[in-house]
Amino acid sequence: MKQIEKFISSFAKEFDHYFLDLIPTNNYSRQLHKAMKYSISVGGKRLRPLFLIEISKMLGVKRNRALRAAAAIELIHCYSLVHDDLPAMDDDDLRRGHMTCHKKFDDATAILVGDAFQSLAFQILSDKKTHPNSEVRCKLINQLSIAAGASGMVGGQMLDLAAEKKKLTLDEILLLQKLKTGELFKFSCIAGPILSELRNIKIFSKYAKSIGLAFQIKDDLLDIEGDEEKMGKKTKKDSSRGKETLISFYGVENAKKKSEELIKSSKDLLKPFGLKAKCLIDLTNFIISRNN
Amino acid sequence: MKQIEKFISSFAKEFDHYFLDLIPTNNYSRQLHKAMKYSISVGGKRLRPLFLIEISKMLGVKRNRALRAAAAIELIHCYSLVHDDLPAMDDDDLRRGHMTCHKKFDDATAILVGDAFQSLAFQILSDKKTHPNSEVRCKLINQLSIAAGASGMVGGQMLDLAAEKKKLTLDEILLLQKLKTGELFKFSCIAGPILSELRNIKIFSKYAKSIGLAFQIKDDLLDIEGDEEKMGKKTKKDSSRGKETLISFYGVENAKKKSEELIKSSKDLLKPFGLKAKCLIDLTNFIISRNN
Repeated sequence: MKQIEKFISSFAKEFDHYFLDLIPTNNYSRQLHKAMKYSISVGGKRLRPLFLIEISKMLGVKRNRALRAAAAIELIHCYSLVHDDLPAMDDDDLRRGHMTCHKKFDDATAILVGDAFQSLAFQILSDKKTHPNSEVRCKLINQLSIAAGASGMVGGQMLDLAAEKKKLTLDEILLLQKLKTGELFKFSCIAGPILSELRNIKIFSKYAKSIGLAFQIKDDLLDIEGDEEKMGKKTKKDSSRGKETLISFYGVENAKKKSEELIKSSKDLLKPFGLKAKCLIDLTNFIISRNN
Repeated sequence: MKQIEKFISSFAKEFDHYFLDLIPTNNYSRQLHKAMKYSISVGGKRLRPLFLIEISKMLGVKRNRALRAAAAIELIHCYSLVHDDLPAMDDDDLRRGHMTCHKKFDDATAILVGDAFQSLAFQILSDKKTHPNSEVRCKLINQLSIAAGASGMVGGQMLDLAAEKKKLTLDEILLLQKLKTGELFKFSCIAGPILSELRNIKIFSKYAKSIGLAFQIKDDLLDIEGDEEKMGKKTKKDSSRGKETLISFYGVENAKKKSEELIKSSKDLLKPFGLKAKCLIDLTNFIISRNN
């Protein structure tokens, strides 16, 4: 395993320990509590929290504050996966090699788990422990709610559903990806600047834009070229359904080239931070070197 | 139509006009935008917003601020209805005499509409327009996220699903109702005190507790005695499914008596406000005099 992969995996372990503890012990409905814990304990690389925390560290934000913001965004991400896996949406039985929430429990439980995750994300951000300055907390909540909502992730998912029925243009796919994954990823990149009371927010918005698109291109490439076992989920989902992806427009070779250019411009934005950005640069490179 | 019914219906008209305008024009997904507008425009009495706004008025809170908080709680209420009507949950085709969101559109759209409503509620509260003091905004968000989440409304819905399979005790039903409807109703009653920077929060927490339970008893009575046409939805749902309700324990006559006592103690709490509370007292009486 490469150095960066070890680093990511040890971060995920540390984060998961903290993350699980944030699910409030629910004395009322044990089933809900169990399903919530299950749905976040099946893992994932925790890339959104990792980027959020590394950028925060570079900017001198206290780790416990960055951890709380990271938990909030991961809760939004987890809720979207739980709902997305439902039979009415993507209808997936497997996620990261584990049964999806509605398969392990049932559809109603999965709907409620997702709903509860979303509330919990905003509850965590609104708490003083996230930041003593309430202006900062409100800014985080405002940005996350916009990134998650109808003009962000949920809007992107709606476009994605429509994409099953019609051929999209390149611009439409780019918009779909920007909304569906880009806006949430952007939050990971600007939460640190917000927590450090608005320093460098423009740089990290630009950084998020490049790296978010590179991430999506890599995801589409993995869907075509990836190994089902390594991915822990079905691959060739989009291509087998005849769904247009970025690769259908760019072609494999150009897509790779494009993602490399995006990674390069992301790294250029980090130059002013010098050696402090070392770890973030390694993570930036990982976005397109990963194989799952 | 009685005076109070005219007042409620004219409030609902005014509120709906404002409420619909808060749904952001979405240039991305017209289907989502349409389904969001549809799901809130099929109406309802808007009792949660009305209580929130009347209590705020009594405490001298500016109307535009109270309206925004009222929109937030109504969005949470609407999202819970849209998700609750899904085939995986209550499986209802009709709500307030109109097709439910998943019948009019489809299940996936209804899941996303609910998700987008929840994000929008917190987006609205986090905005400066709701209150210039960010501590106030954070407090509103914190209270609403707790009331809506796993230890509030969603937790109550989970208990409600479990109640289909087993007989509940009276204490379990009381807990279920407190979580499922009581916590959200409490937010309607304490949002005004929070907006007025924490005056009278204790009185209105107590008030919410009594009136919330009275409201639930009346709902259960209407389910047994109500007229399907007036209600705009199926009645005798709980009783025909053999589901325990508060009425199964209290009996019809005692339930009526109990709800009258609760209304009396709610009104006693308003005595210190004298004539200022007149309108709120009329609304309090309406909770058990309504026939739908």
